[in-house]
Amino acid sequence: MDFGIDDQQRKRLDTIAEFVREELEPLESEFVGKSFRALVPTLEEKRKKVKDLGLWAPHLPEEHGGLGLSLVDFGMIAEELGRSPVGHYVFNCQAPDAGNMEILIEHATDEQRAKYLDPLVRGEIRSCFSMTEPEYAGANPTQMGTTAVKDGDEYVINGRKWFTSSADGASFAVVMAVTNPEAESRYMKASQILVPTDTPGFNLVRNISVMGEPGDDYASHAEIVYDDCRVPIDNRLGPEGAGFMIAQQRLGPGRIHHCMRWIGICERAFELMVERAATRELYPGTMLGDKQMVQAKIADSRAEIDAARMLVLRTAWEIERSGQKAARIQISAIKFYVANVLQNVLDRAIQVHGGLGVTDDTPLAYWFRHERAARIYDGPDEVHKSQVAKKELAKYREDK
Amino acid sequence: MDFGIDDQQRKRLDTIAEFVREELEPLESEFVGKSFRALVPTLEEKRKKVKDLGLWAPHLPEEHGGLGLSLVDFGMIAEELGRSPVGHYVFNCQAPDAGNMEILIEHATDEQRAKYLDPLVRGEIRSCFSMTEPEYAGANPTQMGTTAVKDGDEYVINGRKWFTSSADGASFAVVMAVTNPEAESRYMKASQILVPTDTPGFNLVRNISVMGEPGDDYASHAEIVYDDCRVPIDNRLGPEGAGFMIAQQRLGPGRIHHCMRWIGICERAFELMVERAATRELYPGTMLGDKQMVQAKIADSRAEIDAARMLVLRTAWEIERSGQKAARIQISAIKFYVANVLQNVLDRAIQVHGGLGVTDDTPLAYWFRHERAARIYDGPDEVHKSQVAKKELAKYREDK
Amino acid sequence: MDFGIDDQQRKRLDTIAEFVREELEPLESEFVGKSFRALVPTLEEKRKKVKDLGLWAPHLPEEHGGLGLSLVDFGMIAEELGRSPVGHYVFNCQAPDAGNMEILIEHATDEQRAKYLDPLVRGEIRSCFSMTEPEYAGANPTQMGTTAVKDGDEYVINGRKWFTSSADGASFAVVMAVTNPEAESRYMKASQILVPTDTPGFNLVRNISVMGEPGDDYASHAEIVYDDCRVPIDNRLGPEGAGFMIAQQRLGPGRIHHCMRWIGICERAFELMVERAATRELYPGTMLGDKQMVQAKIADSRAEIDAARMLVLRTAWEIERSGQKAARIQISAIKFYVANVLQNVLDRAIQVHGGLGVTDDTPLAYWFRHERAARIYDGPDEVHKSQVAKKELAKYREDK
Amino acid sequence: MDFGIDDQQRKRLDTIAEFVREELEPLESEFVGKSFRALVPTLEEKRKKVKDLGLWAPHLPEEHGGLGLSLVDFGMIAEELGRSPVGHYVFNCQAPDAGNMEILIEHATDEQRAKYLDPLVRGEIRSCFSMTEPEYAGANPTQMGTTAVKDGDEYVINGRKWFTSSADGASFAVVMAVTNPEAESRYMKASQILVPTDTPGFNLVRNISVMGEPGDDYASHAEIVYDDCRVPIDNRLGPEGAGFMIAQQRLGPGRIHHCMRWIGICERAFELMVERAATRELYPGTMLGDKQMVQAKIADSRAEIDAARMLVLRTAWEIERSGQKAARIQISAIKFYVANVLQNVLDRAIQVHGGLGVTDDTPLAYWFRHERAARIYDGPDEVHKSQVAKKELAKYREDK
Repeated sequence: MDFGIDDQQRKRLDTIAEFVREELEPLESEFVGKSFRALVPTLEEKRKKVKDLGLWAPHLPEEHGGLGLSLVDFGMIAEELGRSPVGHYVFNCQAPDAGNMEILIEHATDEQRAKYLDPLVRGEIRSCFSMTEPEYAGANPTQMGTTAVKDGDEYVINGRKWFTSSADGASFAVVMAVTNPEAESRYMKASQILVPTDTPGFNLVRNISVMGEPGDDYASHAEIVYDDCRVPIDNRLGPEGAGFMIAQQRLGPGRIHHCMRWIGICERAFELMVERAATRELYPGTMLGDKQMVQAKIADSRAEIDAARMLVLRTAWEIERSGQKAARIQISAIKFYVANVLQNVLDRAIQVHGGLGVTDDTPLAYWFRHERAARIYDGPDEVHKSQVAKKELAKYREDK
Repeated sequence: MDFGIDDQQRKRLDTIAEFVREELEPLESEFVGKSFRALVPTLEEKRKKVKDLGLWAPHLPEEHGGLGLSLVDFGMIAEELGRSPVGHYVFNCQAPDAGNMEILIEHATDEQRAKYLDPLVRGEIRSCFSMTEPEYAGANPTQMGTTAVKDGDEYVINGRKWFTSSADGASFAVVMAVTNPEAESRYMKASQILVPTDTPGFNLVRNISVMGEPGDDYASHAEIVYDDCRVPIDNRLGPEGAGFMIAQQRLGPGRIHHCMRWIGICERAFELMVERAATRELYPGTMLGDKQMVQAKIADSRAEIDAARMLVLRTAWEIERSGQKAARIQISAIKFYVANVLQNVLDRAIQVHGGLGVTDDTPLAYWFRHERAARIYDGPDEVHKSQVAKKELAKYREDK
Repeated sequence: MDFGIDDQQRKRLDTIAEFVREELEPLESEFVGKSFRALVPTLEEKRKKVKDLGLWAPHLPEEHGGLGLSLVDFGMIAEELGRSPVGHYVFNCQAPDAGNMEILIEHATDEQRAKYLDPLVRGEIRSCFSMTEPEYAGANPTQMGTTAVKDGDEYVINGRKWFTSSADGASFAVVMAVTNPEAESRYMKASQILVPTDTPGFNLVRNISVMGEPGDDYASHAEIVYDDCRVPIDNRLGPEGAGFMIAQQRLGPGRIHHCMRWIGICERAFELMVERAATRELYPGTMLGDKQMVQAKIADSRAEIDAARMLVLRTAWEIERSGQKAARIQISAIKFYVANVLQNVLDRAIQVHGGLGVTDDTPLAYWFRHERAARIYDGPDEVHKSQVAKKELAKYREDK
Repeated sequence: MDFGIDDQQRKRLDTIAEFVREELEPLESEFVGKSFRALVPTLEEKRKKVKDLGLWAPHLPEEHGGLGLSLVDFGMIAEELGRSPVGHYVFNCQAPDAGNMEILIEHATDEQRAKYLDPLVRGEIRSCFSMTEPEYAGANPTQMGTTAVKDGDEYVINGRKWFTSSADGASFAVVMAVTNPEAESRYMKASQILVPTDTPGFNLVRNISVMGEPGDDYASHAEIVYDDCRVPIDNRLGPEGAGFMIAQQRLGPGRIHHCMRWIGICERAFELMVERAATRELYPGTMLGDKQMVQAKIADSRAEIDAARMLVLRTAWEIERSGQKAARIQISAIKFYVANVLQNVLDRAIQVHGGLGVTDDTPLAYWFRHERAARIYDGPDEVHKSQVAKKELAKYREDK
């Protein structure tokens, strides 16, 4: 084993780290206090700088304008970007666009690429992924009420979706809809369909108020009603019935992205916590950090963050070496493990800040409330734990 | 020991429980989604009904227009009211007014009573308590930068306070300020002074954005700069240098109020969690509540809430029987114990709700973000734990 | 509510507390280091003193030679006795004899009383309860392999039991065996049968080595093979098929006994922890208890123990007022809640003792290893949590 | 980064894994049930096989008869060996001998090597490390009551030590004693002295009863009184006053050995837990492992063990690349982090086994009670957490 980082990657990371600290961290309070839309012009300037640095879309293969990195190397970058709530956005590797780019690269026709992928990669448009439904448990993605029925050379889509993140201002949605209700396997019933958001029948009902904030533009989660929404059959991404299969492909790398982003948040929160503890006087001569209960929070966080990072990078390496299927226990494990580390670290950082911690004078309260969802989205802790256990148990059952 | 509830109290609780469920819980979504000010007219109607029911200001002695209850009996009412974010407000026993009423009853002159206490009790005005300062650790309330210097028959107050909750719209503030910097004991340096909020030099700088929301009116936490703010010396509450002593008196009963309110929140969250688990289908024939990981959350919550309630009521009983000093270990213990139960129960209730849990379609997300402060305000966990331990350790040191 | 303790009970508790501290706590190291049998003569002397004090068999009704206490009052005594590993034994209210006495009082015929109950109450003999089987999950007591087949006027018992605690040296066992395999309800298949341990076919195979110690005499857990073990049909306790029903009756009060005993252990461990922290110098001028990480352990333990005690006493009161069925959620809740508090408090007390904590120079290590089973016997945490949840969920399902 | 394992190491690990499973795991019940001494002849046979396999003393450099492995590679072996309570012993890399070999290699004179190191490496004798004292907090190793006073060409040693592990049957002790009480730095007061255990004045007072077992031979922890114990000055290891410095050197690699051994225990416990869950029927058709509360234990353990392993290996790599000093935060962090994972995994494995878990029919109960000390020896959690935090805080203080 070699835990070393090669020189090129080291240099890349240093450049990005400096950029994040100098260009993005100063935007924290604006991000928390303003609408996202108001921040977009500033972010566009930052995006230009990223392009100039040659660091644009770092998750993509070189032939698609990215950096052609291994998943491990991109993971480390995702951590650095995670330190700022706008880090991934500014580098154009933000969810859900990053995942959408990946499945478009894999499955899009030439027309689809030209219309959807290319401007997405260039950062000219945004997209969304419209899967979760309020009426069905998200923990079980094979249950779905939204249908796409063929009518001539069109699909007619009907259904209600929510938590379609970033739909507000997006150019198109990748919609999961049941196209083959009679398929034998429940994993073969749905397809993914590209739906421009200006299509009649695409109704953005509301930006859901999440943790007190409906948000706007990229920073929002929409409820969408598809009401006889018609798109050409050519808008289907990949084969009919392949919706889940494609969604699965999106998962492994996306999991690494999320987890490393969370670890970036952890490191930023850790930094704020330690700085506060080191510099806040409790009473003359005694700093907050002199108190063991504060020290315990720092030490537990240090160990947990470092352990989490290694677990994720190890998983990234395994995905690349052996494929997603071989790594599926770890892909589930990092999801709940890191999300819980994240919640704990943020909680401790807030506690160490005292009253300041619950204000929006630091980004901690933002992350505390909005990353509570980390233990829910992409499958709640409970589902992932059950899956890890079932796979471990299966080893013994096969043996017997 | 007798854990029974007498008939009169039972009837009172039933009436209040019904009122909260029928009149107040329906206001949850309005409360979360609107400004507080917009809700005030509705709340005024509810307040009228409470007066008609003869349940107004239940925490006060009968001679001051209250119900003359024991602390144990009021505690149980506080739990019922806690189920709604506007419960205490509608019954006029909300913090910080309830505590201010108590110290005014104890220490106010006749003029002060007429001007401040009486309209407060009648619910015509609101008040605030201006103690915490951004520059000094709240965990150590004997450090304070705000001064009140005598100039003729006036105090001239200068300093910066924050987390002066509900200052927006309040008629007066009870301000803690150093009046006797040379006092031997650091507990004798400050006095409490009544400052009408329209006094020149009382500058409400901002409603602090807390967990994404500056809030407004009663539901806000202000930063206030006292800039040569002059009030008559007669506005001092109680003797010079008695500020901390009076603040301490406020603590014991206030602790019971808070803790029982939190338990009310816990019960409401528990109810939402169990209902969701009982009625949400995971897949055909299997409800969310059939899953053991969900069951564990329900069972842990049930046990913790019930244990917490008994601990608080036992403490209330001890305060009344033996006084605050005798009960000081328990008064500290319930603070951190119940605040942590509250955070855990809310966290579990959200998790059981999945995506819905982080939205504002239930009150859970509101409580999750705004009651994070419960482990901080009135002394962070760490301070209370240290105090409990020091008192336990002192028993042995005295022995030796 | 009245949390006061009446004078008679107060005096009783003081007498017992003094007895435990002066007569029993000094036996701790002998108990940990010797065989139980070697300690019996000493314990017999102590038992004599208890009889002289008029405190013998405190759990029993007066007409059976006990103190005729309410369950709440006995609970408080059980806590005091729990401070010593031999406390319950010396007062003749130890498991499993106490529970056996209770069911014999309720169900025994006159002959059975004379032969089994009376000498048991007088402390002349011991008994055991033979239910758990190695081949079947104890968490599901309705599955059972041991059978009692009628042959003339005898039952012929065959089967294997384990964790038949205190069988070594016991005079008789209460054996659960399937007598009615064809009964419609699985709760009506088994009966309880009194089996003298000198009956041919009662084979004590081994005292199971538990946590490194097979133990002996009262302090042991036997594996027993019933091999064509014949007893008169008159040895059946209660009606045929009533085995589970009777076992259930044993449960409620027994749960209170156990939980309060655990709280007694907690208090003794707490005392040792605080004393150690108060008196152990870490380096000149700094005691162990000055360290906040130690303080946190003390404070968390203080709050948890007090909360647990109130929860159990409240449950005892509810059982007496409304019956076991009405209190069944709480009866399950206290089992897992208190057992976990116990484990945590012991763990912290050991940690504060450092190396000394894992030695047998204090009783902490004994409790740590042997009370690990508290989360398993009488139903593991998981079963009780599931039961609490199911009962809470059922409320909603009935509503709908 | 490359998480791959090279072919030679892969083969080595496979050989060892097979050896441990086939030759050592079958000894588990003998180990738990018998005295260690009774097991020694069997272990000698196994040791012979290890030598024949060319895997003897894998932690040592090749020139001293070891495998000359990197710390990372040895760490992986330590994990495999940790699966058996006798694994390290059989490979002659057990504590405290392994650490003693390392410091002898570094500091011994030729005579010392011939007399102490060489037979130790060959496995002909055993040794012990005599540092901790009952009167002084082990958490602060610079306080020490044992003295070695020069008298002619001898040291006269006086003092009381305890937790001198494996002294029973050892040939010599490495004793820490104050030789330079007047040294300026408290880190320069003590020296390490080699004391043959047959020296007059070396009094092994008792094997301390730990968790119910005094143990014997290698598996024991002695209390030793040094009473005018005289050894030649030439028996000093390294320079005068260098005792702590040498003890520190022992620490880094020793930490990796311990942590990886714990991870081996975790993996064995995990295996037992999953196997039990997969094969134990709860009721017809439902296995223990079908229950989500059991699944949660499996999944949490899987994630924690994997995270812990990566954290330790990363630290081992850092020690080798940058030295112990650069890695000191991580060296402290892995100590408390892994020890807690170990305790949690063992606790869960026991719980899943139910009653069986607390018996000695599996090795789980042995580890549960004896590895409770893992959070105490080599510095309790609290000390390591405080050290990690102080080093993190220092970064900010230096900056400012």
